[in-house]
Amino acid sequence: MIRVLLVHDVRILRCALAALVGREPDMTIEAAPAKDAVRLARAQPTDVCVVDADVTGRSPLDELAGLSRKSATRSVGPSHRLLVLVSQHCPGALRRALDAGARGFVCKDALPEQLVTGIRQVAAGERFVDNALAGTVLRASEVPLSERELTVLSAAAEGAPITEIARRLGLSTGTVRNYMSAITRKTGARNRVDAIRISQGAGWL
Amino acid sequence: MIRVLLVHDVRILRCALAALVGREPDMTIEAAPAKDAVRLARAQPTDVCVVDADVTGRSPLDELAGLSRKSATRSVGPSHRLLVLVSQHCPGALRRALDAGARGFVCKDALPEQLVTGIRQVAAGERFVDNALAGTVLRASEVPLSERELTVLSAAAEGAPITEIARRLGLSTGTVRNYMSAITRKTGARNRVDAIRISQGAGWL
Repeated sequence: MIRVLLVHDVRILRCALAALVGREPDMTIEAAPAKDAVRLARAQPTDVCVVDADVTGRSPLDELAGLSRKSATRSVGPSHRLLVLVSQHCPGALRRALDAGARGFVCKDALPEQLVTGIRQVAAGERFVDNALAGTVLRASEVPLSERELTVLSAAAEGAPITEIARRLGLSTGTVRNYMSAITRKTGARNRVDAIRISQGAGWL
Repeated sequence: MIRVLLVHDVRILRCALAALVGREPDMTIEAAPAKDAVRLARAQPTDVCVVDADVTGRSPLDELAGLSRKSATRSVGPSHRLLVLVSQHCPGALRRALDAGARGFVCKDALPEQLVTGIRQVAAGERFVDNALAGTVLRASEVPLSERELTVLSAAAEGAPITEIARRLGLSTGTVRNYMSAITRKTGARNRVDAIRISQGAGWL
């Protein structure tokens, strides 16, 4: 039996995905929100951990991947491999999952069969990349913004004014303004709001 | 048998929700993305149309509700009633669904049983409001922005500069600036980006 841990923050969708995977005769499934996932993954052996990358953000992905790497190299504790659900339009989320060491990538616009196939392959120790994500994988390497620029833009996206961003990051307001201009130029945006919109749409933020 | 049409734009979630509802012995289910839903609802008799209100936005909701009202009053054509899935944190989406004439409201953080119960009640001609949404229903009536302010803010959220918003709406740039100040004040935001963030979070945009 393949032991699947499914991570999604919206309960009704989590239960629905679990119902789908649970129909497979060779899989057992447990489903949890991101906040409980790491604890669950630590507590019980899991073969594949399926995570909605768009919903979950960076931190649980990294923690789950951390557990996964640890168990793979030291052969201790539960072993589980990451498979992420990502949208075609969200290269940034795919990039985060790649960085976190995910082994499987299934497109959210795929048929359920793709997810089940992906789970079997990742459970068998192989990699799996959905064909529909080929273009997204290419674009995932093309984040035009530096880490520092992403930090500035994230703060701006939270609604922080320039002065607050400057204080938070220990920069002058002039430097923050320069970052914002560079960000606007690099993203091809018309202004700051547009730069935030573009970057969120691509999943860079 | 209750004929359910399920509308969700993300295929794997659509299939998963369909798998969930399809387990019920008294329901048959068809699932479609928003762009195909109105055509499908017109073409075949449907008892309950389940729509993810957060994903779908205003226009398909209104069209589906239009079909529903038409069939209810004139007793012609297929009859179907709207049930929406909404998040607790999104009073704006709930408000849109209320305005569109939805009869059922199920919280996305509910257990699947709630969705099935809701479908049965709406199919029987009753209304259904998930208990978990009581607070959201109250907040849904409290959109602090006027229609005009929402139009201005939507354009700003698309990244349009003040001059372009003014031209599009046939206003002076000064008037648009006044609208933006009023919006920022009314939403309790720190600046324009913050006003967009708050309004999108509440589902007003």
